[in-house]
Amino acid sequence: MSLPLFESFLTTTEMSQVFDDANVVQAMLDFEAALAQAQAQEGLISNETAALISNHCKAEKFDIPALVIAARRAGSMAIPLVKALTQSVAGENKEAATKVHWGSTSQDVIDTGSVLVTRQALKVIDNDLAPLCARLLDLAEEHLRTPVLARTLMQPAQTTTLGFKMVNWVAPLIRSRQALIDLAEMSLQVQLGGAIGTLAVMGEKGPAVARRVAHILELSPAQGNWHTQRDNWIRLGLEVAILTGSLGKIGKDLSLMSQGEVAELAEPTGQGRGGSSAMPHKRNPVSAMIALAAAARTPQKAATLLATLPQEHERSLGNWQAELAEWPGLFLSAHGSVSALREAFSGLVIDADRMRRNIDNLQGLIFAEAVSVYLAQAIGRPAAHQLMEELTGQTLAKQCHLADVVTETVQNDPDLSGKLDIDVVKSLFDPVKASVSAQQLTTVRLDELRQQLRA
Amino acid sequence: MSLPLFESFLTTTEMSQVFDDANVVQAMLDFEAALAQAQAQEGLISNETAALISNHCKAEKFDIPALVIAARRAGSMAIPLVKALTQSVAGENKEAATKVHWGSTSQDVIDTGSVLVTRQALKVIDNDLAPLCARLLDLAEEHLRTPVLARTLMQPAQTTTLGFKMVNWVAPLIRSRQALIDLAEMSLQVQLGGAIGTLAVMGEKGPAVARRVAHILELSPAQGNWHTQRDNWIRLGLEVAILTGSLGKIGKDLSLMSQGEVAELAEPTGQGRGGSSAMPHKRNPVSAMIALAAAARTPQKAATLLATLPQEHERSLGNWQAELAEWPGLFLSAHGSVSALREAFSGLVIDADRMRRNIDNLQGLIFAEAVSVYLAQAIGRPAAHQLMEELTGQTLAKQCHLADVVTETVQNDPDLSGKLDIDVVKSLFDPVKASVSAQQLTTVRLDELRQQLRA
Amino acid sequence: MSLPLFESFLTTTEMSQVFDDANVVQAMLDFEAALAQAQAQEGLISNETAALISNHCKAEKFDIPALVIAARRAGSMAIPLVKALTQSVAGENKEAATKVHWGSTSQDVIDTGSVLVTRQALKVIDNDLAPLCARLLDLAEEHLRTPVLARTLMQPAQTTTLGFKMVNWVAPLIRSRQALIDLAEMSLQVQLGGAIGTLAVMGEKGPAVARRVAHILELSPAQGNWHTQRDNWIRLGLEVAILTGSLGKIGKDLSLMSQGEVAELAEPTGQGRGGSSAMPHKRNPVSAMIALAAAARTPQKAATLLATLPQEHERSLGNWQAELAEWPGLFLSAHGSVSALREAFSGLVIDADRMRRNIDNLQGLIFAEAVSVYLAQAIGRPAAHQLMEELTGQTLAKQCHLADVVTETVQNDPDLSGKLDIDVVKSLFDPVKASVSAQQLTTVRLDELRQQLRA
Amino acid sequence: MSLPLFESFLTTTEMSQVFDDANVVQAMLDFEAALAQAQAQEGLISNETAALISNHCKAEKFDIPALVIAARRAGSMAIPLVKALTQSVAGENKEAATKVHWGSTSQDVIDTGSVLVTRQALKVIDNDLAPLCARLLDLAEEHLRTPVLARTLMQPAQTTTLGFKMVNWVAPLIRSRQALIDLAEMSLQVQLGGAIGTLAVMGEKGPAVARRVAHILELSPAQGNWHTQRDNWIRLGLEVAILTGSLGKIGKDLSLMSQGEVAELAEPTGQGRGGSSAMPHKRNPVSAMIALAAAARTPQKAATLLATLPQEHERSLGNWQAELAEWPGLFLSAHGSVSALREAFSGLVIDADRMRRNIDNLQGLIFAEAVSVYLAQAIGRPAAHQLMEELTGQTLAKQCHLADVVTETVQNDPDLSGKLDIDVVKSLFDPVKASVSAQQLTTVRLDELRQQLRA
Repeated sequence: MSLPLFESFLTTTEMSQVFDDANVVQAMLDFEAALAQAQAQEGLISNETAALISNHCKAEKFDIPALVIAARRAGSMAIPLVKALTQSVAGENKEAATKVHWGSTSQDVIDTGSVLVTRQALKVIDNDLAPLCARLLDLAEEHLRTPVLARTLMQPAQTTTLGFKMVNWVAPLIRSRQALIDLAEMSLQVQLGGAIGTLAVMGEKGPAVARRVAHILELSPAQGNWHTQRDNWIRLGLEVAILTGSLGKIGKDLSLMSQGEVAELAEPTGQGRGGSSAMPHKRNPVSAMIALAAAARTPQKAATLLATLPQEHERSLGNWQAELAEWPGLFLSAHGSVSALREAFSGLVIDADRMRRNIDNLQGLIFAEAVSVYLAQAIGRPAAHQLMEELTGQTLAKQCHLADVVTETVQNDPDLSGKLDIDVVKSLFDPVKASVSAQQLTTVRLDELRQQLRA
Repeated sequence: MSLPLFESFLTTTEMSQVFDDANVVQAMLDFEAALAQAQAQEGLISNETAALISNHCKAEKFDIPALVIAARRAGSMAIPLVKALTQSVAGENKEAATKVHWGSTSQDVIDTGSVLVTRQALKVIDNDLAPLCARLLDLAEEHLRTPVLARTLMQPAQTTTLGFKMVNWVAPLIRSRQALIDLAEMSLQVQLGGAIGTLAVMGEKGPAVARRVAHILELSPAQGNWHTQRDNWIRLGLEVAILTGSLGKIGKDLSLMSQGEVAELAEPTGQGRGGSSAMPHKRNPVSAMIALAAAARTPQKAATLLATLPQEHERSLGNWQAELAEWPGLFLSAHGSVSALREAFSGLVIDADRMRRNIDNLQGLIFAEAVSVYLAQAIGRPAAHQLMEELTGQTLAKQCHLADVVTETVQNDPDLSGKLDIDVVKSLFDPVKASVSAQQLTTVRLDELRQQLRA
Repeated sequence: MSLPLFESFLTTTEMSQVFDDANVVQAMLDFEAALAQAQAQEGLISNETAALISNHCKAEKFDIPALVIAARRAGSMAIPLVKALTQSVAGENKEAATKVHWGSTSQDVIDTGSVLVTRQALKVIDNDLAPLCARLLDLAEEHLRTPVLARTLMQPAQTTTLGFKMVNWVAPLIRSRQALIDLAEMSLQVQLGGAIGTLAVMGEKGPAVARRVAHILELSPAQGNWHTQRDNWIRLGLEVAILTGSLGKIGKDLSLMSQGEVAELAEPTGQGRGGSSAMPHKRNPVSAMIALAAAARTPQKAATLLATLPQEHERSLGNWQAELAEWPGLFLSAHGSVSALREAFSGLVIDADRMRRNIDNLQGLIFAEAVSVYLAQAIGRPAAHQLMEELTGQTLAKQCHLADVVTETVQNDPDLSGKLDIDVVKSLFDPVKASVSAQQLTTVRLDELRQQLRA
Repeated sequence: MSLPLFESFLTTTEMSQVFDDANVVQAMLDFEAALAQAQAQEGLISNETAALISNHCKAEKFDIPALVIAARRAGSMAIPLVKALTQSVAGENKEAATKVHWGSTSQDVIDTGSVLVTRQALKVIDNDLAPLCARLLDLAEEHLRTPVLARTLMQPAQTTTLGFKMVNWVAPLIRSRQALIDLAEMSLQVQLGGAIGTLAVMGEKGPAVARRVAHILELSPAQGNWHTQRDNWIRLGLEVAILTGSLGKIGKDLSLMSQGEVAELAEPTGQGRGGSSAMPHKRNPVSAMIALAAAARTPQKAATLLATLPQEHERSLGNWQAELAEWPGLFLSAHGSVSALREAFSGLVIDADRMRRNIDNLQGLIFAEAVSVYLAQAIGRPAAHQLMEELTGQTLAKQCHLADVVTETVQNDPDLSGKLDIDVVKSLFDPVKASVSAQQLTTVRLDELRQQLRA
């Protein structure tokens, strides 16, 4: 694999193969073949020449490490590749060799090659992203009524449902999936401008050739060359970064809910997954780890893409090359993350009992607000608020349950017990009932999200 | 102005005012007023209470520096503000005071306040962006046939036209403008979820209140709360970063073309603009400077936004607060840049003669490729290529002009002069004719871009 | 305060004042005064002139908002300030006015001003950093033997001591403190180069004047001008970023140990600190929040500093200005963080009982490795390892304590009970004894760290 | 090479080999061997066992791609490697196999392995950095008196010397070189803490074993484990980023001075270096390109390192892994840059004549300040300033040379010609004389820098 060790570790074999040298070089050669075919279709070169050139556009014919060495001197990966291709064609037909890469420029080959490779990368991501979304929606439905603590500022807040949490997790993934589909349309454009973007060498046929190359490669035709106007392209990279961030949020929650003291969720085990030989009790959340590592690295890669936008004149010196080198990292991280989470959620261990116990351990204090609202109906807000402050104080002091303290107080106070329904009071401490609005919102959103995912 | 000195220096007074403390606090109070009104419309509180609360929602009533001090202790800007608002209302009506901020949470106020302020910021940007785009389109049309050197890898390449360069400059701005309009639709959403996003306190009326608040504030209703799912919001910030990058590209080219040795463009002078008392010849490109500084800073701010995406549970500890603090910087930089460039282009000094001279100084070598293509028609590509290598070599050695060398060679060679039209040869060295494809592409794109700008 | 609202919220009043406009302008004026004095000392201007100029170098004399507006046109904060200062002096003495800023350049004023302000900022940081370090060392000593769970990969691992954790927290702070002291020496240099860094106007006296300015301002003399070679300066900024990261690590652990389900640490309460009116049980870790927000934002600010290093020629267009604008943010965040943590640790609530209970809840499994090592002495490693796998399995299945399972097994097996000391076996489950190596290491490091802090 | 194509393109073969999988795995195995040897020296295991284990610590024995696949499941690169090593040893001696990796933890192996590899990387950098510095000092000396335009804010300013420019280029490189040497001392530390950093398994011998491992591997002994306190390590990475930025500054100036219209410097040509087949006049600055690309990418990688500092508890989930993956990129970029610039400067084409012509083209206006200073001696500053404004205005209007205008004016004015020496006036326009202070400063600094480089 063409990746450093600790990069390989955090990504997948599939995505590594997309950005493997041979695959990238093949994509560049696919552009050269398509260019020749398009020029033949427009009558600029003969069909035979186009066929002959296309025939030599095979990555396995080229010595890639040698091309890299030559490229460093030449200042472009395309120069030695085009030279080698030309020589290869010339070995068969000298005249045809003069048509190789004709009217094009290094950046055309490299950019279109990157576009082709990126299309594959997006497919690899979607192959895991769509099922992960579907799985989260299914789990959300399954746990529509499973109470779990909501936590704000890293402190227990009130009760929500696991379904509601999951609907919130999945919504940004579905949005990113749609955004990637939309942006691919816009960003997976052919690059063909010739030396300075004006398509000058091909004369009036230039734009038609560009359209045909796009058609042959099944890419969007570009409004014009985008050698140093790369905003559309960068938008695509940024959306991958957003996806990685949204996956990171799931990874973060997963890691927090998997802590020994919380233990509400656990990643699947088995086959050496997340184990520790020295510590038999350990079950490390390795999918969360990969998602978090991806989310830690990607923002800065996105920044580099943005930082390279001010590219000089008609071809940049430094910024373009930096962007090219940074690009694969976004996809490697993103797919590492999405596939890791897909694996985690496919076998996720959900401990609903523990979720309940974690709620119970809070002595009912998280229901204080709801009780206060109910009391206010009887005795007004200020009095209700004051009473609840007293009762929660007692609860904390006695280390007992607020439900008991409130019930007792109401029962012992004829005024209160006359105005309040003790069963209602008790029900306010029922986590399932307390999270009814979460359930209702989840039901509505599940429908919407399923439709969006299907779209 | 609520900005540090060297930040003020790089932005505008208008945008400073958008993010001025009083304006931000007013936006938060606008949310509280809208919430009360929406709850009255849904029958949760009385119209009188709503009116009374709204009446107190005026920033000038509050001691903002004191609120900041209190906020640091409380851990939220909203807590002391809501407290102060409640006290203010209570001074008039204690019962009404209990309805202040009811069913809402700190993050609802702060996020919706940020949304409102951001809507203003986008308007301020568009007020300069649209005219800048229009101006660039006009200049492009005006300079449809003005030849100028295209430069690749910071070296002279071939001739293009200033119109073509300008069309390429403006296209990403028009794309960003459209993207900001589209994203505003999606991202300028009300935030209303209550303590943990479930709208629990308002019971079944919660979603209806949320829709009404959105309507009152003329914001998009959200599909749900987005307390810790901020991808849509961040997409908006990233688009501002893309805009700043595209403006930075213009600033970079402007700075390069304004260099003393290039001198093709110059920013307007007058009224102390870019002068230097010690150096009378200096005319500093201060607009380019601001655009470049903005483009240097913004990518990393975008990275921070992305880095904050993994927010814990139902309200984040640290990441949310970091995002809030980082947010204004993007808009301050972007508007500094767009308004600086608008100013630069409104009075841009274009030296078409110098552009021509810069082309001429290159001894015709940049036309070698075109000549080679023409020669090839007569003597085949390999021979043409070899001949041109010889002639360019002579040109460099003799420090003369390639046009003369080629003309002489053709005239002295009966074979060549029989096959080639000497007038055509000469015309290949005419920068205007050499850039005809640039002119044609520009004409087509001008039409498209004008339509997109109008849309 | 010259800061946006959500920036003010995350920093301190002291640091806000350091970067307040008036203070920054005063620092620039201090440079002008020192320059005049140094030139008088070298005989380039008269003492009277120097005194007169110095006398006008008072920030309150200038209309700063007007200077900002003028500066945007001029392209430099220094140009209008120097102009205003010159006019002010000229009001008293026209000849003296011609000596204002003589031989200097805009960047000299601005950079030296920044250096002076930064020296104050470092002092403000150290005023809280040193006591925070001392406090952590004291707490570490106090809790030398307090067992607490060590956690790896967000899972319980083995037992360590709170003292050991704290020594690890404080060590990087003490290293950063020392590094800041060392770097200040190197980085707080006068900037004085004149228009292009060559001190040309002052002739042979240039270097002597530069040394005298440094002496007057109590700054290090620079080896030369550093207008576009800012590595030393940036190193200082990066060290502030490292400090913020190390504080962020403490904030992260604090936030994790303060979670409701862990509850080993809590930030102090009282006076509206971290409370929640709606949720009486909440005690939000607001200091951790500030430390985490600072650590989330600072890395990208550091990146901007690094990104601005490639500055063009003798004065940069864009990068220098970007660096100036980004600089204060690092110090604002860092001091927000250090002072918040100082406050948190001054009243930190440490629940050693809960730490013990969290260990106990793990059923003794975290001691399995130690038991396995002891068993191996009797029955060899492979047998010991296999036996422990069995016993931990039983423990998990029966939801009992490993200590009981192991004790029973040893007692029921004559071979084992013959070879093993049952008291030793039991002692292996004692958290205090289990963390003896942590205690020993802590004792050694406490000594070293106290010395380093004192140094 | 274990690198993606467009990353390989921007770095060197030597540095690629340092971070090649086999080399990294060997470094991890070197740690395991050293651990066993150290334990033997301390009597914890037998010498035979240590020798046997060491004997198996050879990277070529292991199937690295298979280890990566297993590592993804395990959540650590070290787990499958240690397992494979253990099996390998067990194949020869089962008892010895139980001592493999004993008392250590995954992070110990990985971190120490990274340290060992990084030491090699630093050596590779220095092998090119030291000669580059020496070369720049030699060139600076050679061009001590070569006048060249100084440029500020991308505009011509005054004259300096090429020697002065070069001394300013090299100074930060020499500082970084020294900083890297100093930081290596501090940062190339052994990592050995065992599961939670307390060295518990090895009992009292732990610290001694750690010291011995450090000694065997010729690393600094650490004050303690640094599993989640990585500030020293990160400082080293940040210094590499600073170096890359300082190299980027040279690359930027080189690219600007190589522009067709400036043409003062050119990178060496030959052997396909920077050529363009289509454009015979092109000589692309490929070394500058690599230096600029490196400087564009590295700041954000540094940010990721900083962002990972807040690592949870005793081993981080996500941040540590992100840091590991990001680490090599800094060194790959830095060495790409330093070796590219070394190549560029070894054959740099310096056109001193063109430098002179570029000065001359400015019509003497850049000497206006110096003339004004001289005039002031005769007629006072205000009159001198006013006169010069007039004369520079005439010069610009007539497109002539200021020297002529001034000379004529002085000669025609009996008062002026009486007070001024016309030869002195003329000499003020001599670029060599005008840059005498640059020459003097350069002489002093050359000495200092040579000493620092030798140190």
